Amino acid sequence: LASNEERAAGAVPNWEAALLEESLSRRVRAVGPAYWGAGATAAPPPVPPIALTGGVPDPETLPFEDLAEAAQTVLEREGRLALQYGGPQGFLALREWLADRVGRVDGLSLGPENITITNGSAGALANVCETFLDPGDAVIAEAPSYPGAMRAIRAQDARLETAPVDGEGLRPDALGETLEALTREGARPKLLYTIPNFHNPTGATLSVERRRAVLEIARRHRLLIVEDDAYGEIRFEGERVPSFFALSGGDGVLRVGTFSKTLATGLRVGWVAAAQEATDFLVRMRFDMGTSPWIQRLVAEYVSRGLLDRHVPQVVEVYRRKRDAMAAALAEHCAPYVRWRLPSGGFFLWLEMDRRVQPEALREAAVEEGVAYVSGDAFFVDRSGSQFTRLAYSFVAEQEIEEAIRRLGRALRRAEAASRPGAPQSGPAR
Amino acid sequence: LASNEERAAGAVPNWEAALLEESLSRRVRAVGPAYWGAGATAAPPPVPPIALTGGVPDPETLPFEDLAEAAQTVLEREGRLALQYGGPQGFLALREWLADRVGRVDGLSLGPENITITNGSAGALANVCETFLDPGDAVIAEAPSYPGAMRAIRAQDARLETAPVDGEGLRPDALGETLEALTREGARPKLLYTIPNFHNPTGATLSVERRRAVLEIARRHRLLIVEDDAYGEIRFEGERVPSFFALSGGDGVLRVGTFSKTLATGLRVGWVAAAQEATDFLVRMRFDMGTSPWIQRLVAEYVSRGLLDRHVPQVVEVYRRKRDAMAAALAEHCAPYVRWRLPSGGFFLWLEMDRRVQPEALREAAVEEGVAYVSGDAFFVDRSGSQFTRLAYSFVAEQEIEEAIRRLGRALRRAEAASRPGAPQSGPAR
Repeated sequence: LASNEERAAGAVPNWEAALLEESLSRRVRAVGPAYWGAGATAAPPPVPPIALTGGVPDPETLPFEDLAEAAQTVLEREGRLALQYGGPQGFLALREWLADRVGRVDGLSLGPENITITNGSAGALANVCETFLDPGDAVIAEAPSYPGAMRAIRAQDARLETAPVDGEGLRPDALGETLEALTREGARPKLLYTIPNFHNPTGATLSVERRRAVLEIARRHRLLIVEDDAYGEIRFEGERVPSFFALSGGDGVLRVGTFSKTLATGLRVGWVAAAQEATDFLVRMRFDMGTSPWIQRLVAEYVSRGLLDRHVPQVVEVYRRKRDAMAAALAEHCAPYVRWRLPSGGFFLWLEMDRRVQPEALREAAVEEGVAYVSGDAFFVDRSGSQFTRLAYSFVAEQEIEEAIRRLGRALRRAEAASRPGAPQSGPAR
Repeated sequence: LASNEERAAGAVPNWEAALLEESLSRRVRAVGPAYWGAGATAAPPPVPPIALTGGVPDPETLPFEDLAEAAQTVLEREGRLALQYGGPQGFLALREWLADRVGRVDGLSLGPENITITNGSAGALANVCETFLDPGDAVIAEAPSYPGAMRAIRAQDARLETAPVDGEGLRPDALGETLEALTREGARPKLLYTIPNFHNPTGATLSVERRRAVLEIARRHRLLIVEDDAYGEIRFEGERVPSFFALSGGDGVLRVGTFSKTLATGLRVGWVAAAQEATDFLVRMRFDMGTSPWIQRLVAEYVSRGLLDRHVPQVVEVYRRKRDAMAAALAEHCAPYVRWRLPSGGFFLWLEMDRRVQPEALREAAVEEGVAYVSGDAFFVDRSGSQFTRLAYSFVAEQEIEEAIRRLGRALRRAEAASRPGAPQSGPAR
């Protein structure tokens, strides 16, 4: 008698479609296809594109040797602890370092009980959403905003509403109107997701006056604030603006940070700083037994040696030069078709294209010219915003920036030409 | 004018209690306090305890040098990729290796599209729960079962029901009765969480006949099976029993695995093997941008060098000796008070204590004698089962096992004496 195991040998596992359909949660139905890899083209592009897509550090800046040495040191000195469960809240010494650091920046007295370590800031946002959102709760995000956060919010079967930004970031008046409209409808607005420093994608930084106004509105509506500060350390000019967390004394604010932009995205070490009352509940909703203690300990080793404090000014200098190179190239090659504001930090330039440029035509021309960007519609809940384009200057090699923008300029000219009356619908335009 | 930032300097962040109370999700309310650290005593114990608590590998077996070398190699050879986002599904070469490995064991043709890499098997369970559970859905777990999984299930605001096990594991007849009772009530049983190999905590392994019967019942009730195989590789004797995943050809089964028990818990690398139709939805519910590619790549390097295949037989030998040492010591020091079955693999011995032993008296006596175990009630939804005790032989040093069990024997005698009519309620008993 052949066992089922033997009989099944070589069979490809297969899941009855009806069983899958009836088994899925409302949340996975609500969230839609995975963000990762979206927009990848099936056919190889005619020209190898220069990528201005990801909010990812310059690979030349990654401190390989220091990280490798920290990994080695930690394994030699405390290998047993590094290779065992470390608990969901994260490595104590790293939490102490972060409490001290965030506390000094924000003028608050923080301890390790105020910090929880997460799988990047993405893991932090997921943890916050699970702790505070029920199905049907309304969440306000900026329009535009970071798509990964918008997916994590939608995955709670929550209602994602938006408040528009202008060149100076979130508009308090618009936020107030959105909240009042929701309240009139009987909705329960629960949470504001905001990126106040070097906003992704717009690059804007919210003034302290607007922050105070937003905080006042949030208090009136019993709205929690999730303050995503992924890019706050990458500051080129100007004074640091006090965080919502600082301004509120921690009440009702969750301050999310990460080593992804300063150090490396592949470490997957982020954190939430919050009042202990809130932190305790965040930890309750962690079921992953914590991220790798080895990684957390090597990051703690790296930062406590003072290496981060040496590293950040160096990379800030790199990104400042790249921002300036990109802005200069835009002025030279793209000026008639696009408008932008110079960000005072972060990784992105946000372009508003002239209405004469058809987004679909630009997309095609950019593929042919060999330059990749993220189309603005990805940053809007309603997929409006195709008249915008996000360019990341962080990842691209500095010496390739001018060529990338030259290609973008050619693509813009072709897209504009394609939209003129009588122009052919598609096909080579030069 | 002093800024709020300045005025707040030194203040401890504080969250208004009413705001917290009205903001928490139903899920975080449902889940209860964090599992991690539960049972830790505030006062230092009088005797440093020998710990028989955690399901954690023997620290002497951790392959520090090989892992350190793999970490170094990966950083030198592919550091840019190791330190960048790797995507939510996980590193392709590791998924390929796992597909090949699981596929050969299960007699199924798997590819990387059938595997998703998670933050340990704990992260896998959380991911599965989010993908398939809605509030109010009923989930069946074994009674007893792994507490971490039970928390992850309760955190979906799901209804956690149980089916009892006997010495041979889950009883198909009891499972059928539980499901029929739920169906009569109008509940929607969605998922069975089971640990078929070297069960945590009982050590039992489910026979192929029972697996077939369970699968048949699951099919009839449209019940998904989550098969947690954390301990399957730690097999001392007997043939491997075909998995639910193998027996079902993958239909309706999610097979969860981990490197935590074979290699190190601190790596936090686990996986789900499933039909691609299901895997695609698991990936949709990952919002953490994936775990560290550096760790995933160093594990891939380690396994593809053949080091895991050399390591596993060595650690199995270690755990077999420890199991035997613990069983021999139990026979010598504890036999009148406890019964157990010898597990054919895994990390645990599960003791049923004589009714003459009062669990609370044992707890006190064990603290005084200096031996730590996990009380059986932790493994039951209804906290019944205090007449059971889980002993882990995996972590404790081999040469300490006899002393640990000798202490347990003394504690048992004291607890039995304390329960005799006329015995003093507490206080030193010798």
